[in-house]
Amino acid sequence: MNANGTLRHLLSLENLPREVITEILDRAESFLSVGTRKAKKVPVLRGRSVFNLFFENSTRTRTTFEIAAKRLSADVVNLDIATSSQSKGESLLDMIDNLVAMQADMLVVRHSHSGAAHMIAEHVPKGVHVINAGAGSHSHPTQGLLDAFTIRHFKKDFSKLKVVIIGDILHSRVARSQIHVLKALGVPEVRVVGPQTLVPESMSTMGVKVYNDVELALDGVDVVTALRLQNERMEASLVPSAQDFYQNYGLTKERLALADPEAIVMHPGPINRGVEIASEVADGGQSVILHQVTFGIAVRMAVMSLLVDS
Amino acid sequence: MNANGTLRHLLSLENLPREVITEILDRAESFLSVGTRKAKKVPVLRGRSVFNLFFENSTRTRTTFEIAAKRLSADVVNLDIATSSQSKGESLLDMIDNLVAMQADMLVVRHSHSGAAHMIAEHVPKGVHVINAGAGSHSHPTQGLLDAFTIRHFKKDFSKLKVVIIGDILHSRVARSQIHVLKALGVPEVRVVGPQTLVPESMSTMGVKVYNDVELALDGVDVVTALRLQNERMEASLVPSAQDFYQNYGLTKERLALADPEAIVMHPGPINRGVEIASEVADGGQSVILHQVTFGIAVRMAVMSLLVDS
Amino acid sequence: MNANGTLRHLLSLENLPREVITEILDRAESFLSVGTRKAKKVPVLRGRSVFNLFFENSTRTRTTFEIAAKRLSADVVNLDIATSSQSKGESLLDMIDNLVAMQADMLVVRHSHSGAAHMIAEHVPKGVHVINAGAGSHSHPTQGLLDAFTIRHFKKDFSKLKVVIIGDILHSRVARSQIHVLKALGVPEVRVVGPQTLVPESMSTMGVKVYNDVELALDGVDVVTALRLQNERMEASLVPSAQDFYQNYGLTKERLALADPEAIVMHPGPINRGVEIASEVADGGQSVILHQVTFGIAVRMAVMSLLVDS
Repeated sequence: MNANGTLRHLLSLENLPREVITEILDRAESFLSVGTRKAKKVPVLRGRSVFNLFFENSTRTRTTFEIAAKRLSADVVNLDIATSSQSKGESLLDMIDNLVAMQADMLVVRHSHSGAAHMIAEHVPKGVHVINAGAGSHSHPTQGLLDAFTIRHFKKDFSKLKVVIIGDILHSRVARSQIHVLKALGVPEVRVVGPQTLVPESMSTMGVKVYNDVELALDGVDVVTALRLQNERMEASLVPSAQDFYQNYGLTKERLALADPEAIVMHPGPINRGVEIASEVADGGQSVILHQVTFGIAVRMAVMSLLVDS
Repeated sequence: MNANGTLRHLLSLENLPREVITEILDRAESFLSVGTRKAKKVPVLRGRSVFNLFFENSTRTRTTFEIAAKRLSADVVNLDIATSSQSKGESLLDMIDNLVAMQADMLVVRHSHSGAAHMIAEHVPKGVHVINAGAGSHSHPTQGLLDAFTIRHFKKDFSKLKVVIIGDILHSRVARSQIHVLKALGVPEVRVVGPQTLVPESMSTMGVKVYNDVELALDGVDVVTALRLQNERMEASLVPSAQDFYQNYGLTKERLALADPEAIVMHPGPINRGVEIASEVADGGQSVILHQVTFGIAVRMAVMSLLVDS
Repeated sequence: MNANGTLRHLLSLENLPREVITEILDRAESFLSVGTRKAKKVPVLRGRSVFNLFFENSTRTRTTFEIAAKRLSADVVNLDIATSSQSKGESLLDMIDNLVAMQADMLVVRHSHSGAAHMIAEHVPKGVHVINAGAGSHSHPTQGLLDAFTIRHFKKDFSKLKVVIIGDILHSRVARSQIHVLKALGVPEVRVVGPQTLVPESMSTMGVKVYNDVELALDGVDVVTALRLQNERMEASLVPSAQDFYQNYGLTKERLALADPEAIVMHPGPINRGVEIASEVADGGQSVILHQVTFGIAVRMAVMSLLVDS
């Protein structure tokens, strides 16, 4: 992912050095003010061609990348691949070759297979940058970075934090991304908790503490992340029902009271009120869920600007 | 809709003061020349983020707002909500919170329920502006404003006009919008005419004269608006058939001759030739239907620029 | 298509004078460097309104026109007509009248019927320009121009060239466009080859040499164009099968060796590897298939800029 010290592509957070993460977060800090101006525009990517390649539909993610690119003054072209020449039997790499020939500067790739973004990155020539905008149903490395940005924003220092992630850890790349980035930034204690089918003991090899009791897991933490409960998982009977999940793991006001009084509440969105989180918590004073959205734009601007500098 | 004298949102024309309407029309006048330049662009909304939130499909309306925003140099993001996270069960207001967190400046909302735009407007913080781009099948307040602009453009003075609206008055928010705005601007006589099922006597409480005979209604008027006959109405047997409607209420050359010789002919589009209007009238010298389209862009630019000034 | 010496619309290559073709190619040459800059942007069409009117889906073609227009700084609005008011029963020309009333400067039209672009061009007023972006499944005049640009780029002089086009000549407007433009530019020998059902003897009236033996046709040529084999043709039993076609007409390394050693290989894309062309040829040193894509952007920029100058 790295070519002699500079970042060419953002494909995953695994093995991303702390210095690069910090550089992205610092850069995002400087872009944060752009969003609060009337003219939300800087000329950093002026005239660059950014293609949003969405092999699976995700309006929400596509929109955040589109906004980030436009605020950097890039020209953005949205390609909904389901309706494009994929259906004409063109191979993925032939399609990429064509976009490169159209002088693409950056490809933002969303694909159900996590290998797709990697394969594309290995294929494109120098000067073309690839960002993994999520593989699987709802996760991507920029999510981990914006989580880190959010925590740093509110907690300043990573070195003494206790963090807990609640829910379907097993299938969540949001969880995986966050664990990777927090470990790299020196967070001493990351806890995970959820139904045993979704949080196997073996996860402790990732350097996290595995809990099955949500109350114990919340005790004294500084940061709480509630993951979205995917309907698909419920259909597969991995969790009994939404009601049952809420009963046992839902982030209620009472449970949140077990955390540090200054603890922040995060969620990758979109939230299921009354499933993984109570409405009064989602809308409460400790929730920074909407800050995450705002910071997500700045983080994506930071990643894009960093890549084209390489 | 108004906060201490300035307009924050444009949701409906009811209760919109004459001065504000006049300010919009005057401002639209100044934007009219932008469209005739080679470079149709002014920096009024440079770097602002405008979201087109279309909960029901309307390419035509979406396009006019997109063009208006782009000519004001805004960054426009089109959200086709049918395919977005609405399907993930996210609530409408959670979605709006997310767009606000993305630092949206303006939300252009098209929704089948007229309450949606109002609900959104009440929900968003200061600094975010909502425009109702139509509730129901084909109407919206900017339509009423562009109708008023068109009439003022060709007739100058509202104070002596006779105006007639022909067709399905009952279900038409185009009719309702136009009646409101013309009353506010001091038009002394607004007539409505159509099949009794579509123009009930009770409409006279809106301050209009109800006719059932189209020839009588057209007598001596200065402005004629033919409404689009919606297929859905016909399917519901509220009108017998397209042929029958044309026979009794279609705006033919012969009927138009009953109006003032200088009368103008308007229609919100898209027209059904040979249903509510004869081709020779739609394409004739008194028709200002395409002027309405051109003026519609200027009026939308005016509304957008006025809101961000507030 | 021409109004007193200047080009108002680009609808077809038939009867397009050599001087106009050359002017487009020269202009494209000057735009080629724009794509290699970081800021791929020139202000030639700044503030102009370009509408992509796609009555049939073609993401690939739409994207190239969108990029070309954006690099010229135009405002681009994509209209997917399948989902628009066409479904409301609006006539094609009424829709065009509306776009003209929105002060469109340029309409890029893709329609299954080749007459549509012509009809639109005849209908629009002076100052509005129409580009035919393809009628039928995968062809359009800008394809012929980019083919000519590619050949000139690599071969410099048209006056001594031998060119061969392989495949379904009968149904291919790519072939037809290329033949027209090469004849106009003075190419002395254009050969066509393919199954007899797809390359009838009668084609010789177009001034081309008809072959049925691909080895003979390739002998000593300077330029080889392999056409895409459409599945629809195979379904209609006009060719026995993909395997059979490849066996008899596929452009293999061995067959390419019969051409001039400096011969270039072209294809309109997307390619069917192992059907009309061998992978090693498509990816080989003589292939200029991806150059065609790059040149296609410059050629479309050239056409757009030329039209608005008229």
